[in-house]
Amino acid sequence: MPDRHPTGPDPAALLDPAPLLDPAPLLDPATWSCPVPLREGAVVVMGHGAGGALSAELIDDVVVPALAPDPGAVLRSLGDAAVVDVGGATVAISTDSFVVRPLAFPGGSIGDLAVNGTVNDLAMAGAQPLYLTCALILEEGTGLDVVERVLADLGAAARRAGVSVVTGDTKVVESGHGDGIYVNTTGVGLVAPGVRIGPQQTRPDDVVIVSGPIGDHGVAVLSVRDGLLFDTQVRSDTAALHGLVAAMLATGAEIHTLRDPTRGGLAATLNEIARSSDVGIEIDEPAVPVRPAVANACAMLGLDPWSVANEGRLVAFVPAAAAEDVLDAMRAHPLGAGAVAVGRCLDRHRGTVVARTALGTTRIVDLPQGEQLPRIC
Amino acid sequence: MPDRHPTGPDPAALLDPAPLLDPAPLLDPATWSCPVPLREGAVVVMGHGAGGALSAELIDDVVVPALAPDPGAVLRSLGDAAVVDVGGATVAISTDSFVVRPLAFPGGSIGDLAVNGTVNDLAMAGAQPLYLTCALILEEGTGLDVVERVLADLGAAARRAGVSVVTGDTKVVESGHGDGIYVNTTGVGLVAPGVRIGPQQTRPDDVVIVSGPIGDHGVAVLSVRDGLLFDTQVRSDTAALHGLVAAMLATGAEIHTLRDPTRGGLAATLNEIARSSDVGIEIDEPAVPVRPAVANACAMLGLDPWSVANEGRLVAFVPAAAAEDVLDAMRAHPLGAGAVAVGRCLDRHRGTVVARTALGTTRIVDLPQGEQLPRIC
Repeated sequence: MPDRHPTGPDPAALLDPAPLLDPAPLLDPATWSCPVPLREGAVVVMGHGAGGALSAELIDDVVVPALAPDPGAVLRSLGDAAVVDVGGATVAISTDSFVVRPLAFPGGSIGDLAVNGTVNDLAMAGAQPLYLTCALILEEGTGLDVVERVLADLGAAARRAGVSVVTGDTKVVESGHGDGIYVNTTGVGLVAPGVRIGPQQTRPDDVVIVSGPIGDHGVAVLSVRDGLLFDTQVRSDTAALHGLVAAMLATGAEIHTLRDPTRGGLAATLNEIARSSDVGIEIDEPAVPVRPAVANACAMLGLDPWSVANEGRLVAFVPAAAAEDVLDAMRAHPLGAGAVAVGRCLDRHRGTVVARTALGTTRIVDLPQGEQLPRIC
Repeated sequence: MPDRHPTGPDPAALLDPAPLLDPAPLLDPATWSCPVPLREGAVVVMGHGAGGALSAELIDDVVVPALAPDPGAVLRSLGDAAVVDVGGATVAISTDSFVVRPLAFPGGSIGDLAVNGTVNDLAMAGAQPLYLTCALILEEGTGLDVVERVLADLGAAARRAGVSVVTGDTKVVESGHGDGIYVNTTGVGLVAPGVRIGPQQTRPDDVVIVSGPIGDHGVAVLSVRDGLLFDTQVRSDTAALHGLVAAMLATGAEIHTLRDPTRGGLAATLNEIARSSDVGIEIDEPAVPVRPAVANACAMLGLDPWSVANEGRLVAFVPAAAAEDVLDAMRAHPLGAGAVAVGRCLDRHRGTVVARTALGTTRIVDLPQGEQLPRIC
């Protein structure tokens, strides 16, 4: 095999167990576990983790083909909660690793995110969250008091959400191979009979609702990030949304699709749904709630608030006839007080999201490439 | 609060969101996400992740109190598979993060471990593994071909084990904050009615069985670790053991306790069971199978093979009357061909493991501190 990497051994060869039995020059694992310079797109870049087009590419081109060679119903759910049968029960399962930097920010910490993020993924499938697992990757030298504080936040968030952390794992990596604490949580929840929520349920004419102002989480985290520090009163919106979803379901309305617009923000979420539901989406741009402080911070940083992560907001697609009932129920819940209808689905320009501006013109809302906000959750 | 860390800001203060709103000197998250020198045991050290006494201390003193302030049945299971009720089904849940270094080694890779390790945790609870989640933390700059190869191994191992990877997550961290790829898998399995396996079932007089030679995995990984390279024909024993467990259960014997001796090896596993089951354990030292190549490598490295990790072996505690049947069933299975009875439980020296040596003397088998083999899985 020709060496495709003139500056070092071929990583593929190094991964092959056969050459590893040969103690000769290939036996230098450091050459492929160490960072290497970007080279013709053949390496992982930060944008692969940011929830935009690059993330989607990585999942579609690399992850799914390897893990799911014969795509079926279950496999489509990669990246969201999977809904599966377990001994006759309809169960939602979701996993998320949290690598947010810094570990604490106005309004929350990685401990809160690790609970709320996974609980929300279950809630977006209409599931009642029941159990969480918690796996830590600790960096050698991290203060045990930091670990304690993160776990205290995590435990408190779990109790607030009414979920039990039932099992866990702890690994330690050397200084320089981690960043304090990385947390993975995986959640298991129960989907009630008759509840069917998912992008395949979206219909043209569905009304698009957002549960409150967008962009708070991303701006709160960036405001305390090294190299970016700025003064803001914006706090992360991190919250567990299953109570809000239960209130929405209690109206009896047929909720078609729910999604929490985390990495990649509202823009990524709308694009994903437009594509997976095969509908066009038109958003009334002035109707989308953005706090002035968030808008100002985004203007300062050159960010689009529609692409900034949220951790306690949801986007709902509901039949037009039920929209008012659902909005009323949401506004009666503390986490949906700012709910508004922001647009609707169309059977035109399927797969594409457009925004109607205050001037009455329309613009295409692109799937963000995703590199603008690394490690936001 | 006095500054307990004269060389830098108090990490606890930095984790508090309130001071983070103050842009003054506390606003340097790098000071607590960066490694700091060891200081009076108040920081994470590599041994906290190695499955020995330090790991147990971290879990008992830090993790469990934060996540489970009112210890109950479920909470005791932290670190193993939890067995819970989900909509009337008895479900086992287990999570594990994999940070093995290097990513590939004779006999397997992090992709194999990530499947087999979690499948085995479910199998040790007597569960039929059904579903896995897969969450990746990728280091910026890692070759996409390395990612592809790891995922190919992971997918192949899942297919061999008959489990579906149903959902996933991908995060990316900057160069110098990861090590190529870290993988978390969480597994969900179904426990058949009537199956009750766990340390609380262990009884004095139970026979202790190991399924084959121990220490292969740890030696295989160390043989290709940078700084340690040595020539060996030992290959990792990584394998999914639920088929072997099913064969054992099919004998109709009452299997009391099962455990896969991973981090911390046989010594840690026996100690954990002696403590949690409140029995004494006596092992016939010459009966414990260790390959000569493993024994030689351990002698060279100053390691005790009983403390070296395994990834495809199990330890079973079964009633004496059923031991022969169980051994026969194990030996008829490819993954249990080397099964042997190595000792028994006693109602003396409860909580303590002793080994009877070839000379007829006894020695106490200590819980390893755990620092000898970092990042072995």
